[in-house]
Amino acid sequence: MNRRGFASDNNSGVHPNIIEAISKANQGHVTGYGDDVYTQKAIEHFKSAFGPKTEVFFVFNGTGANVLAISTLLRSFQSVICASTAHIMVDECGAPEKFSGSKLIPVETPDGKLRPELILPHLHGFGFEHHAQPGMISISQVSEMGTLYSVNEIKQLADLAHQHGMFLHMDGARIANAAVALNLPFADFTKDAGVDVLSFGGTKNGMMMGEAVLIFNNELAENAKYLRKQSAQLFSKMRFVSAQFLAYFENDLWKQNAQHSNNMAKILAEKVSALGVKITQKVEANGVFAIIDDGVRDKLQKEYFFYPWDENKHEVRWMTAFDTTHNDIEGFCKTLEQLLNE
Amino acid sequence: MNRRGFASDNNSGVHPNIIEAISKANQGHVTGYGDDVYTQKAIEHFKSAFGPKTEVFFVFNGTGANVLAISTLLRSFQSVICASTAHIMVDECGAPEKFSGSKLIPVETPDGKLRPELILPHLHGFGFEHHAQPGMISISQVSEMGTLYSVNEIKQLADLAHQHGMFLHMDGARIANAAVALNLPFADFTKDAGVDVLSFGGTKNGMMMGEAVLIFNNELAENAKYLRKQSAQLFSKMRFVSAQFLAYFENDLWKQNAQHSNNMAKILAEKVSALGVKITQKVEANGVFAIIDDGVRDKLQKEYFFYPWDENKHEVRWMTAFDTTHNDIEGFCKTLEQLLNE
Amino acid sequence: MNRRGFASDNNSGVHPNIIEAISKANQGHVTGYGDDVYTQKAIEHFKSAFGPKTEVFFVFNGTGANVLAISTLLRSFQSVICASTAHIMVDECGAPEKFSGSKLIPVETPDGKLRPELILPHLHGFGFEHHAQPGMISISQVSEMGTLYSVNEIKQLADLAHQHGMFLHMDGARIANAAVALNLPFADFTKDAGVDVLSFGGTKNGMMMGEAVLIFNNELAENAKYLRKQSAQLFSKMRFVSAQFLAYFENDLWKQNAQHSNNMAKILAEKVSALGVKITQKVEANGVFAIIDDGVRDKLQKEYFFYPWDENKHEVRWMTAFDTTHNDIEGFCKTLEQLLNE
Amino acid sequence: MNRRGFASDNNSGVHPNIIEAISKANQGHVTGYGDDVYTQKAIEHFKSAFGPKTEVFFVFNGTGANVLAISTLLRSFQSVICASTAHIMVDECGAPEKFSGSKLIPVETPDGKLRPELILPHLHGFGFEHHAQPGMISISQVSEMGTLYSVNEIKQLADLAHQHGMFLHMDGARIANAAVALNLPFADFTKDAGVDVLSFGGTKNGMMMGEAVLIFNNELAENAKYLRKQSAQLFSKMRFVSAQFLAYFENDLWKQNAQHSNNMAKILAEKVSALGVKITQKVEANGVFAIIDDGVRDKLQKEYFFYPWDENKHEVRWMTAFDTTHNDIEGFCKTLEQLLNE
Repeated sequence: MNRRGFASDNNSGVHPNIIEAISKANQGHVTGYGDDVYTQKAIEHFKSAFGPKTEVFFVFNGTGANVLAISTLLRSFQSVICASTAHIMVDECGAPEKFSGSKLIPVETPDGKLRPELILPHLHGFGFEHHAQPGMISISQVSEMGTLYSVNEIKQLADLAHQHGMFLHMDGARIANAAVALNLPFADFTKDAGVDVLSFGGTKNGMMMGEAVLIFNNELAENAKYLRKQSAQLFSKMRFVSAQFLAYFENDLWKQNAQHSNNMAKILAEKVSALGVKITQKVEANGVFAIIDDGVRDKLQKEYFFYPWDENKHEVRWMTAFDTTHNDIEGFCKTLEQLLNE
Repeated sequence: MNRRGFASDNNSGVHPNIIEAISKANQGHVTGYGDDVYTQKAIEHFKSAFGPKTEVFFVFNGTGANVLAISTLLRSFQSVICASTAHIMVDECGAPEKFSGSKLIPVETPDGKLRPELILPHLHGFGFEHHAQPGMISISQVSEMGTLYSVNEIKQLADLAHQHGMFLHMDGARIANAAVALNLPFADFTKDAGVDVLSFGGTKNGMMMGEAVLIFNNELAENAKYLRKQSAQLFSKMRFVSAQFLAYFENDLWKQNAQHSNNMAKILAEKVSALGVKITQKVEANGVFAIIDDGVRDKLQKEYFFYPWDENKHEVRWMTAFDTTHNDIEGFCKTLEQLLNE
Repeated sequence: MNRRGFASDNNSGVHPNIIEAISKANQGHVTGYGDDVYTQKAIEHFKSAFGPKTEVFFVFNGTGANVLAISTLLRSFQSVICASTAHIMVDECGAPEKFSGSKLIPVETPDGKLRPELILPHLHGFGFEHHAQPGMISISQVSEMGTLYSVNEIKQLADLAHQHGMFLHMDGARIANAAVALNLPFADFTKDAGVDVLSFGGTKNGMMMGEAVLIFNNELAENAKYLRKQSAQLFSKMRFVSAQFLAYFENDLWKQNAQHSNNMAKILAEKVSALGVKITQKVEANGVFAIIDDGVRDKLQKEYFFYPWDENKHEVRWMTAFDTTHNDIEGFCKTLEQLLNE
Repeated sequence: MNRRGFASDNNSGVHPNIIEAISKANQGHVTGYGDDVYTQKAIEHFKSAFGPKTEVFFVFNGTGANVLAISTLLRSFQSVICASTAHIMVDECGAPEKFSGSKLIPVETPDGKLRPELILPHLHGFGFEHHAQPGMISISQVSEMGTLYSVNEIKQLADLAHQHGMFLHMDGARIANAAVALNLPFADFTKDAGVDVLSFGGTKNGMMMGEAVLIFNNELAENAKYLRKQSAQLFSKMRFVSAQFLAYFENDLWKQNAQHSNNMAKILAEKVSALGVKITQKVEANGVFAIIDDGVRDKLQKEYFFYPWDENKHEVRWMTAFDTTHNDIEGFCKTLEQLLNE
């Protein structure tokens, strides 16, 4: 039995319901590449949640989703403005630039969240051919620093993008955690707030793998199926992703998982705060950012795997997951307390 | 229950042992992206089969494997010589060109198999900067037309490649079918025959998804891990591919599956031949190519899904799979017989 | 003084009028990158020749022109059908694939010319995402084998392309030679025959450098200026290309040059035929393709530089240029005659 | 006669000696693509200045040079660290990302100059496949803000790069201006200071067009000729660039031009300072950055074309060129004075 740590929500396994759904979908032959009833139903679910003009493209992983979103909506001479901490900027080994040809423009933020005033200095050179043309604002909801955009903040960014003929992309690798934190239906803070294209993640919240690219205006989507194939993100036995999504939505499994994960983060933050540890970012979803002494960190990592975030600031990141238990937190905090008292 | 047809070996489901292995791997947390014991063991298995200098990179699908193989070994100004029927040429929507920048040079063949004399006319312009530099010969084993390369044929192609400073790539989407047809260990007709890089497929032979890129000379592999990530083929919960491979190799499950599939193809070919249907290619693995009247074809497709191969020639393709049954073939042939007699 | 040979029309120098025009344009400062009167006038000239909806983009060279034409009109998942001898296929080191991501599909031809019946077998898979989508037919006028498309032949190809939602591209590296051979205005066998985008060459007919990409429907051209910059084909001191085009069109200099070059090819062909040399292609412009013994070829090359075309067939290529003289041909034929008689 | 302004050094024309050299090179036929005596001599000149291991590749323009430098030395998963004002970052419409696939990481600087302490925070993630691997530091000498790196500053950056297995690239679009400002031979502040690859510019200092990519370690250069062709930067009539370089170096024409240009900038800066205009950057080469009132700027631009630099700060950029005259500066300052007094 592998110990649960706080390194990443994708170090967790798969929710049993999801495993069961995979197993149940394993019946006979169905046409490959998405022309099957599981996929049709899963797409129907997304369309009913986001509106009939929504086009849905399942892919393998988050990088694949982001790359497909960017390359479908932009041409190579257009640029993407994102936070300097964005997954597309620092965690995808240059996949967006490589596949779409587009320039990424990183913007420093205090908390992983873009704001109009941070973006405005980069909105120039429109029509000037020497300049990569600003074509997209990309935000992560939840952000990579565990913080949350309000509906109103998203609307402001969408307005800013649209005023300049640009698109708003949301990297929703942790969108379920955002939905429960905001206590809103998905559409309210995505499509209805002006998001044009959404990378809808499932892997970090209890699925085995599988993400969906949602393009809310179907007129923008006509190239997506070709680009998905050309980017090697078309799954031959697609039913096994689609069946996961069906189980994920059944009885709001996604919501239970995300709610639990968020709750665990809150508890973890309270407990470590009580030990005198400084929390550096608002705990709005399932990430806790904290300052601890390097010596303590090194010893703690021997027991529980997690990542440093900003070594210069002695900042670390602890992520909770759908399967984090109270016992996990107890054990972690106890070890931490001992180390702090040494 | 979905009826099994003869459209494609990836219309099949997943072998129950594989599903079980996925389920069993779902224990607690492990580090993501391959730093887990399942992946370590699966890599060990490949290394013991192919030698310690072999580097192993798991990816999601066959297109991902081929793209990684090409882009790791070639630079953008180098070209790949392949059969005009090769998967990389006609079934990947231009993924190799897009991701590696390399030119593909298709060569007409009678049976999907390259031969030195077909390749030689394309081996010119070395050192001449106007010309994309021939850098790789890519063959599919089993070929897309169901035919098989002998060890000797592979050696000849490897020698030809190496004499010109080129690499030999094998697209092994159906490599298990080849191994049982040749009745040889994998290494004998790959690494030991001079293949430099192998896309080792599992999906078409009973796995859910997952392929491995095997680079036999580790000195050529140093860029592969970055290119895998940049091509969006790095699986966060990698244990769920690795565990499949472990089950795939346990008790030679791969061999049982492939042997069964090949046997079914032979039986199918015999039975349709007995009905007077002309078979157009040697049935050496799990594909049967045949000529049937368009009217018969259209009616037969209503009962059993399969693909036309060359409409001008009235040629169709029937693929068997690990789960094809005698009953499936009986039913199919009965329907075909009725249609032929109408 | 460098001896004039028959290797290539771009081994020639620059027509004196062009040099003079460059010199005259060298007056004071003008805005860079095309916002100058020379460029405006040159663009006006093209618009008056091809119609007001024509958009004009000057680039450095023929490869740059072809790459811009393809990447402006196609997306990466679309393919280009071309002759297997096309410059874009064999003489640009994979530049089209690298920059546009598009697949090139080479078609064997007897004489460098595509025909509908040769293209039709490749027009399939529309809407099928596994397949690079046929997006463009590309022809070279004059072809790389010195042959000419008639207006009617071009119209047939344009119709074929447009019936399938594809574009027709013409690589006009030797378009002036075609215009004088056909004795038609440029527009008659390009825009008016259905060509959508034209690489209009000048370098091979007496200019120093400089080509123009002409997009006949300005609605297709909006991305071109950005792609020109992104492909490093935007000339800062653009007036020095534009002034060349102005001189090229003044008093039909282009026509004199091309007419002379074509005439020289005819004379050369007659004279070598009279020596018993077999001519392998129609001499319709400024290229002569012939069979000569390898030994003769080797000795002749020591005196006059030229290229073998197809070594297996002992075929060579001789190109005339705007500055080829009767004396050049006399000398060449004399040497050839001596070698043949040895 | 076009009035000379202060917009850009590439709004100037061509030095008469360069035009004459072009004209003189126009004699008979020579082999295309660089196999000619002009090119051989020009390459020899570079080799004698930079050492025999230097490989030289002529290209059309600065963007082409930078793209070739990056794509020759890096693979697509490697990143380039540059100033946020760098030409490769803001003035090439994303050409580096598009052609090389590499990520660019912009760093804010006060004066266009990178320093080790600004770079260090970005030097992490080596060996971590999620991260684009830092592969190159790119500096502009003269910087885009008219400032100069000392030899020692360059050495520090080279050491930093090499300690991390990275390369140092110098964008030398204005390298002649740097050489005269430093009063040093080219090699002293490039190759001998640790620069690995240099984009050696000529266009901004009196040439018509043409840049050279210099790779100082020939072992790194083997792919460059193919990448030059694949990036459409190989000039068929290359003698006409090579002859320019020969004239550029003859009797130190480059030095006269650059010295004059730098002197003019100093005079301009003194004169506008005397009018009370605030200069914002050190005037170390041929650029003057200044603050002027928007109203004054708008009126001044009607007489003399120039670019705003930072509109928020009311900052403008004035560039002098090899052909700027004392009269030009007199007239400009007179007009400015009148506008300031209005």
